[in-house]
Amino acid sequence: MAKRLTKREEDYSKWYNELVITADLAENSGVRGMMVIKPYGYAIWEKMQAELDKMFKDTGHENAYFPLLIPKSYFSKEASHVDGFAKECAVVTHYRLKTSDDGKEIIVDESAKLEEELIIRPTSETIIWDSYRKWIQSYRDLPLLINQWANVLRWEMRTRLFLRTAEFLWQEGHTAHATESEAMEEALKMQGVYADFAENFMAMPVIKGEKSENERFAGALNTYSIEALMQDGKALQAGTSHFLGQNFAKAFDVKYTTKEGKQEFVWATSWGVSTRLMGALVMTHSDDKGLVLPPKLAPIQVVIIPIYKTEEELQAINAKVEKMQRELKSNGISVKYDNRTTHKPGWKFAEYELKGVPLRIAIGPRDMENGTLELARRDTLTKEIVVQDDISGRIKNLLDEIQTNLFDRALEFRNGLITEVNTFDEFVEVLNNKGGFISAHWDGTAESEEQIKNKTKATIRCIPSGTKDEEGKCIWSGKKSFKRVLFAKAY
Amino acid sequence: MAKRLTKREEDYSKWYNELVITADLAENSGVRGMMVIKPYGYAIWEKMQAELDKMFKDTGHENAYFPLLIPKSYFSKEASHVDGFAKECAVVTHYRLKTSDDGKEIIVDESAKLEEELIIRPTSETIIWDSYRKWIQSYRDLPLLINQWANVLRWEMRTRLFLRTAEFLWQEGHTAHATESEAMEEALKMQGVYADFAENFMAMPVIKGEKSENERFAGALNTYSIEALMQDGKALQAGTSHFLGQNFAKAFDVKYTTKEGKQEFVWATSWGVSTRLMGALVMTHSDDKGLVLPPKLAPIQVVIIPIYKTEEELQAINAKVEKMQRELKSNGISVKYDNRTTHKPGWKFAEYELKGVPLRIAIGPRDMENGTLELARRDTLTKEIVVQDDISGRIKNLLDEIQTNLFDRALEFRNGLITEVNTFDEFVEVLNNKGGFISAHWDGTAESEEQIKNKTKATIRCIPSGTKDEEGKCIWSGKKSFKRVLFAKAY
Repeated sequence: MAKRLTKREEDYSKWYNELVITADLAENSGVRGMMVIKPYGYAIWEKMQAELDKMFKDTGHENAYFPLLIPKSYFSKEASHVDGFAKECAVVTHYRLKTSDDGKEIIVDESAKLEEELIIRPTSETIIWDSYRKWIQSYRDLPLLINQWANVLRWEMRTRLFLRTAEFLWQEGHTAHATESEAMEEALKMQGVYADFAENFMAMPVIKGEKSENERFAGALNTYSIEALMQDGKALQAGTSHFLGQNFAKAFDVKYTTKEGKQEFVWATSWGVSTRLMGALVMTHSDDKGLVLPPKLAPIQVVIIPIYKTEEELQAINAKVEKMQRELKSNGISVKYDNRTTHKPGWKFAEYELKGVPLRIAIGPRDMENGTLELARRDTLTKEIVVQDDISGRIKNLLDEIQTNLFDRALEFRNGLITEVNTFDEFVEVLNNKGGFISAHWDGTAESEEQIKNKTKATIRCIPSGTKDEEGKCIWSGKKSFKRVLFAKAY
Repeated sequence: MAKRLTKREEDYSKWYNELVITADLAENSGVRGMMVIKPYGYAIWEKMQAELDKMFKDTGHENAYFPLLIPKSYFSKEASHVDGFAKECAVVTHYRLKTSDDGKEIIVDESAKLEEELIIRPTSETIIWDSYRKWIQSYRDLPLLINQWANVLRWEMRTRLFLRTAEFLWQEGHTAHATESEAMEEALKMQGVYADFAENFMAMPVIKGEKSENERFAGALNTYSIEALMQDGKALQAGTSHFLGQNFAKAFDVKYTTKEGKQEFVWATSWGVSTRLMGALVMTHSDDKGLVLPPKLAPIQVVIIPIYKTEEELQAINAKVEKMQRELKSNGISVKYDNRTTHKPGWKFAEYELKGVPLRIAIGPRDMENGTLELARRDTLTKEIVVQDDISGRIKNLLDEIQTNLFDRALEFRNGLITEVNTFDEFVEVLNNKGGFISAHWDGTAESEEQIKNKTKATIRCIPSGTKDEEGKCIWSGKKSFKRVLFAKAY
């Protein structure tokens, strides 16, 4: 932790890359576009997983696991899906290596060529629906509510740690329903679960909405997303939930017998969030000193650092802290005591600031005399001297306060960056000088959307849920429009 | 659950395959050798994962995640490792598909050929040690105690659900240490953790020991394993922990600066258990009626089934059970109430027997009058009528009793199948007529081991830990031997 981070103002993108690496969240591997998630980064991801998994189970879903490799022919079964997905992906063609004749290297054994190539899953609709044909016979088998935690791979050309990597970790929900309305309800319910998680755990405000046709998932009739805003004014799609209609049921011939004995195709959804959320978390709250983590997802919520000159002083502090630690832990607070003698307090302060630990306690000889300690908040960078009594209660409250403060701060920032415009000139001006979400009228055509994108790099992030109808004119074509949509440049 | 299972006596292997499928644990997918783990099977695996993960963290390990794909050249770096591993594996050669010229199919885009082939990890030593070179500089960075939960792939020719599949789920620990003795201690500690898990959670007795050179992991100086015995008298290796010496450190140039400022190679271990444990669990306890699950790993510990004729009777039972359920749940007992009206009680009884639910409660109108219920144990298939008062306490005790009983039963069975022999004739006779572990003298040479294997299909499962030295003669060569080892036919 000798290096100073690039400031966000100077170069936001560089700041992000440096922060992810210096805070020990992740790093690039020797394999193009694939990252190593380091222990500290993985610990945050595990906390996200645990909360999401609980939310999925509370809404009736069960986990299962499907194969990593998908026969090439499966992708051809759903026409729009193959166009969207099967192109940029890793193809397994052989199943054996051998030593070369000169004994010097290992080479692919050409005699071990697969009859049909296998694709590393870029998403699992096809292999899962191939199973569902066997699992679903009758209305009694519905709804089928399955989630999978897995790695997937998409051969991305330009990658960035967490935000866009060739391999990433995610969960993918795949559900089957007897009726259209039930499937639609599920798709919206899971969008709601994602929004709840983003706001209440990540402290990241999101806008719920529907994607325009251009931005839909390949094979979906409707895609619902949650959209967040990063500190540089760019939007980030943080999770999507798709209403798939009967597309996959038809492609994989998944029918059920109704109560009345008729054969019907089932209705489907799929939904997912990924390690991309790690990037969103970093970019929503962190500052020029390092990470800022919401207490609910912080692997370490409180760090305690002793300030001492003599060995006796350290011993006395150790004894005091041991009791304090026990009390904090028994109150469900995750605490680390860093009394390493190899590093100075100043170094430690900077290190845990970099790592985004929400609260720091420092205790020195004077505190020992006075029954006090120094309590520092990572979110506000403020410090106060408090008495040691009832430290658990005080910390519990402070952690709640920090969680709320982070959300409120991000919400205020986000709300300040939603701008209504009524002309294309205004649109361009706001986009270039202010950034953020731009609320504007759009005629609903793919052409206008495409042309705006080509001209400005801004895309329609979503048609926000629950916005009122309002007559206006499309900022591009001037044609009639009945609703504003949100544009932004996006990650 | 109309089908009856094949009896174990008739065909143990067929019984196993049928049970895994009818109990909804797993099934074969459309991809050769790869399984789908169904929700009920996955729920058991999740319980295993949770316990193991806790044990790993309690012993100081942290989780991380490394890439799925490994450049071919990495495997060549550790000579013995490549021979053992890189041969039968899935090779990624291309990164794009395209639509064929006639527009009719998707084909591999030959212009998107990788310069260097990528291998789907069969195990991750190479890619992980490539990272460790960057992570380890000084003695302060040691020990490095990392675990990864991941999918791996080995192109197996003959596969069986859970026991041997091309893709499987596992955890792999990879640690680096300053000294040889510390690495050795770690390897043995993790063997101990595995034994603890097998015996105290899976209720599966295991023998700890060391592998003979022939059976060692490719690249290890020593492999420690836990060996279990299945009901058909065949052994199953349930987990391995490897002392890797400095092999990988040297192959990947991982050195650290000692306190004295010298550069030294680090010492390494790796250790893993996989979804193979699911197969071991099934084969250790289950019977001709279906699964028998130890309470500590059962997704449902207690199932409650109402017996009724009229709607009023059902209503009364529902009300009673609701209270009971709340009480059980608040005592940490996982309980399911199956009051579906679409299935008869007899069908439900058979279903939960098949699924291995440890305890079944049945409540009918007479029980409602008398304040009683019927309690049935899956392990002993015994039933008793008990009073409803303090049902939580009673069930807690019973679950403990079942857990203990399953272990004791399996231990007694296993101990009855360890036979000492002193001649090769005896060896063959026991192997063919009794099965199980055979304790015999061996001269310590790979030749004798190989010849015994060729002749009998029995292999040395392990050189058991803590056995006393005892002079004798190798059953094969007649040469001097100082210790008995355990032979068996194995999965």
